[in-house]
Amino acid sequence: MNERPVHGYVVEKQALLPRLSRIEGQVRGIARMVEDERYCVDVLDQIAAVQAAVEKVALGLVDGHVRRCMASAAGDERDAKATELVAAVGRLLKTS
Amino acid sequence: MNERPVHGYVVEKQALLPRLSRIEGQVRGIARMVEDERYCVDVLDQIAAVQAAVEKVALGLVDGHVRRCMASAAGDERDAKATELVAAVGRLLKTS
Amino acid sequence: MNERPVHGYVVEKQALLPRLSRIEGQVRGIARMVEDERYCVDVLDQIAAVQAAVEKVALGLVDGHVRRCMASAAGDERDAKATELVAAVGRLLKTS
Amino acid sequence: MNERPVHGYVVEKQALLPRLSRIEGQVRGIARMVEDERYCVDVLDQIAAVQAAVEKVALGLVDGHVRRCMASAAGDERDAKATELVAAVGRLLKTS
Repeated sequence: MNERPVHGYVVEKQALLPRLSRIEGQVRGIARMVEDERYCVDVLDQIAAVQAAVEKVALGLVDGHVRRCMASAAGDERDAKATELVAAVGRLLKTS
Repeated sequence: MNERPVHGYVVEKQALLPRLSRIEGQVRGIARMVEDERYCVDVLDQIAAVQAAVEKVALGLVDGHVRRCMASAAGDERDAKATELVAAVGRLLKTS
Repeated sequence: MNERPVHGYVVEKQALLPRLSRIEGQVRGIARMVEDERYCVDVLDQIAAVQAAVEKVALGLVDGHVRRCMASAAGDERDAKATELVAAVGRLLKTS
Repeated sequence: MNERPVHGYVVEKQALLPRLSRIEGQVRGIARMVEDERYCVDVLDQIAAVQAAVEKVALGLVDGHVRRCMASAAGDERDAKATELVAAVGRLLKTS
């Protein structure tokens, strides 16, 4: 991992990885609730919690992209990165 | 599982559990992408895919709730279940 | 309006109409902000406010549908209404 | 409008204003549907259409902000603008 040109979120890795592993655990917990036939409204609430947690990770990545990928780019490249970012935000918002 | 009063989604269990385990794998894949410092726009796309998959599970549960939990209830109980469902949909829409 | 079979949200009309006219005003306000070239982050916040208000109206309709359209239906018809409702919630969640 | 420092979306104005006025008309149409007590699932579909249209306007503004507000800024100011943008996207995603 150390030799190649990084995309600049080495720092965030430390923040994102534990959050992702917590989300993985939450999803496993939901599977267990379904397995146990728990009341579906309770399951829906856990799903809403996963959605919120996943969006927070997404927002962390958007933040990193805007702040660093874009800062280090210039001119045409920056423009291309902006286009990519906006398209990705659109997919998160499910607009396109 | 067989003796206790089920909430009526025994049938969906078969559909939901494999989907949830696929989502768990997707989340693990995202962690790997972050670990490998993959381009954040690519990670964002995987996150959008997880969001869509999670919402499909949610919708399956809403469907089950409307169709069965509510059908088997009557009068006040049905009303209470409707209130719970709408509140849960609101949390999914993050309205409240 | 009085003669035809109503869909049961006569009561909600009183609640929904003022909210919708407020939303219309909010959208007009956003147009004015764009016209005046206001700072785009401020415009985005007004857009987020409109989204929240529109979702609250949607949730009010879901509530009415679950509580009355579905309550008054039976058997196959109820099933058809459940299918329609879940599909509509899916479109709100932009899942399908 | 011409004398003051613009926020750079003079060009988008031409694209955004007609879209906003179309959204205003859609919201008015929804009010009319509610007034006429139209079937709530049909109303929900119009609401989903408004949501999609509003999000497209939001995405257009995000695009403008990333591409120009941020491009013209430097150093600390760019950083502040990134923070603002990410916060605004978070509010659109209703994450925070």
